[in-house]
Amino acid sequence: MKPYSEFTKEELLAEKQSLEEAYKEFQKRKLTLNMARGKPSKEQLNLSLEMLTDVNQDTDMIIEDGVDVRNYGVIDGIYGAKQIIATMAKSEAEHVIVFGNSSLNVMFDTVARGMVSGYGGNTPWYEIKDRKWLCPVPGYDRHFTITEFFGFEMINIPMNEEGPDMDMVEDLVSKDPSIKGIWCTPKYSNPSGIVYSVETVKRFANLSPAAPDFRIFWDNAYAIHDLYEEIALADIFGYAIPKGKQDMIYEFVSTSKVSFPGSGIAGIIASQKNLDEIRAAMAAQTIGHDKINQLRHALFFDNGRHLADHMKKHAEIIRPKFEKVEETLDTELEGLGCGTYTKPRGGYFITYVTNPGCARRVIELAKEAGMTMTGAGAPFPHKNDPEDSTIRIAPTFPNLEEIGVASELFTLCVKLATVEKLLK
Amino acid sequence: MKPYSEFTKEELLAEKQSLEEAYKEFQKRKLTLNMARGKPSKEQLNLSLEMLTDVNQDTDMIIEDGVDVRNYGVIDGIYGAKQIIATMAKSEAEHVIVFGNSSLNVMFDTVARGMVSGYGGNTPWYEIKDRKWLCPVPGYDRHFTITEFFGFEMINIPMNEEGPDMDMVEDLVSKDPSIKGIWCTPKYSNPSGIVYSVETVKRFANLSPAAPDFRIFWDNAYAIHDLYEEIALADIFGYAIPKGKQDMIYEFVSTSKVSFPGSGIAGIIASQKNLDEIRAAMAAQTIGHDKINQLRHALFFDNGRHLADHMKKHAEIIRPKFEKVEETLDTELEGLGCGTYTKPRGGYFITYVTNPGCARRVIELAKEAGMTMTGAGAPFPHKNDPEDSTIRIAPTFPNLEEIGVASELFTLCVKLATVEKLLK
Repeated sequence: MKPYSEFTKEELLAEKQSLEEAYKEFQKRKLTLNMARGKPSKEQLNLSLEMLTDVNQDTDMIIEDGVDVRNYGVIDGIYGAKQIIATMAKSEAEHVIVFGNSSLNVMFDTVARGMVSGYGGNTPWYEIKDRKWLCPVPGYDRHFTITEFFGFEMINIPMNEEGPDMDMVEDLVSKDPSIKGIWCTPKYSNPSGIVYSVETVKRFANLSPAAPDFRIFWDNAYAIHDLYEEIALADIFGYAIPKGKQDMIYEFVSTSKVSFPGSGIAGIIASQKNLDEIRAAMAAQTIGHDKINQLRHALFFDNGRHLADHMKKHAEIIRPKFEKVEETLDTELEGLGCGTYTKPRGGYFITYVTNPGCARRVIELAKEAGMTMTGAGAPFPHKNDPEDSTIRIAPTFPNLEEIGVASELFTLCVKLATVEKLLK
Repeated sequence: MKPYSEFTKEELLAEKQSLEEAYKEFQKRKLTLNMARGKPSKEQLNLSLEMLTDVNQDTDMIIEDGVDVRNYGVIDGIYGAKQIIATMAKSEAEHVIVFGNSSLNVMFDTVARGMVSGYGGNTPWYEIKDRKWLCPVPGYDRHFTITEFFGFEMINIPMNEEGPDMDMVEDLVSKDPSIKGIWCTPKYSNPSGIVYSVETVKRFANLSPAAPDFRIFWDNAYAIHDLYEEIALADIFGYAIPKGKQDMIYEFVSTSKVSFPGSGIAGIIASQKNLDEIRAAMAAQTIGHDKINQLRHALFFDNGRHLADHMKKHAEIIRPKFEKVEETLDTELEGLGCGTYTKPRGGYFITYVTNPGCARRVIELAKEAGMTMTGAGAPFPHKNDPEDSTIRIAPTFPNLEEIGVASELFTLCVKLATVEKLLK
């Protein structure tokens, strides 16, 4: 089929009428579909059910040094939980602090600490009135919500096939001491699925920021979430340490999409200097996180040794869903010039990029036919997609049959929005 | 026996020698005792063990509105967990937000929000350079650590039998707009065990602070932790609401000493306006807390209905320990003029007040005989006990036999320190 851009006006009008008829058929089906959020499906949650009965006896509760995991104490996490976080990040337990159920919460608290206390004796960010943060786009909406909450001016950094535009990052951070951080999802980036190249990771590790308290927030959310073969992310600490730049990096991981999204464990990986500073603030904040849950994870994943096998089971469940979406996009949209899309090797999202000015309309059309998608603009700071073209597709939660229907409806909405735009 | 103060110097020297001999006998026993922290004992932790197997099947996980508690969402807590917190605070679920495992963490985050965002549109506290906080003393060391962390000047408020000195509180808050809050543990106050009188609670509810963003941090940590009959704390919201002063109060409770110290649930009780403001900040901080653990608690405590029976079991375990300490203090110290002590009807502590200038020495003597006690000065801001006289005794964790030995050793240390002081 030839691209819509080569259609005559008459051909476009005929196509529009035909698409609208198909769309009305979808509307008649009163569908309720949701491709909005990156939530594991019920089948995935069931993979970890056994964990919940692993720790239930008095005698299960005593760990190293005679600690009873039910009681107060052990502020930075039990050894087995540190091992899990370390395994996910290809690090060592000594470089890890374990927190509660949410790495997002840890990131929020970490920025909050920069605001009120400052890092490494530097001026608290509250006092930096023109404080700024670099935001590779498209990116994760909840990252941007945090820096918006704390009043940062957010600067968009375009993503390419190797990660964020490093020329731009290097240039900005080396000149402007009010730039205090950058959000990164280096492996299977949310939402584009890109894995940062070795060169990109090296350049991050070697940044020379004007701000002494500049930090790379390395949100390794999909560290072990491969859909096919394992893809290794380059080791940012490995490159940073020989240059003495390890204090510039906070790495975050969690088991939210390994065990349970609401009831996993989260951790930070950082330099000893940074860990000491974090522990000092934690001592005022809490007496400790949920160690029974840490122990459940340690036993179920054998201190991290069972993670790889477990993630293969996740992949077997969700890979067919990704492939169903991709197959439908290929079949329905090839050659029409309606946009481009990614075929990620892991993570939780497919990104569809429409022609400029069509994304909002696609999402609106989907909604009016009963399908919720991630809100227009969500992958950008302030929900402002300058091209109105990026759509995040989250295929993990619905079942395969629903994914089939949803994908067909999605391609129909893309075609209709594209034709409408050409007719304007 | 006559008081030490009426002893002649010769009598004091003889007494000192006799006490030192007894003390050396204790040292020879190479004891390892700990009366330092308010930790539940193993027997208490076992009371809630069954909770851990109550939620373990796929089918257990679906609650109201079809929510799967394992997955993301439900940011302010599931209904059953709200009911537990509401029952503890004699409130209603609609006035509750449920958080993770630590009410201390919620208090820290609440002060942090005041620092960075401000309350109700008022100036963030970061900008109030002479910000101050009222600290009834003796009080809870970890409260003071939070306000120290955030740079508040802390003003000691003496406690009397009815609670904090309300003349002083009213006078200070009505005059100084830089006073932003007060720490209160209104029931079985940590460490003195005092329950605030109805009159005190009324006066709190009716405060007219100069600061529009002044807050009472009502840490109802021992809301249902009666050792004998139930003692009802007056309802601060009940008095505040008719006067329109409910926005002035944040109440905190947790199940740390009901289920598990490390793995309980915590909640805040507040006005709708305050709850909305908290929820708005939470939306940036997290996607939600651990709902599997919330559901465990909801089922085990039957949405709060089993709490009273459960707390009676706790009381049966720890009441004999309190009585053992009190009995030893009565027997060993009566009439000697070595100080005074409380006989609390609930909570986790007994407070011993030595003659001025003796507390640090008592704790030091205890330590050198193998007994760890709460550090000298801990119940005061900056660990500065102006009289050097307040000692917090935590009798819940050791077993009854250990408590017996520890109490004897403690009275010996008190006597020795008192005699030493008189001889100086």
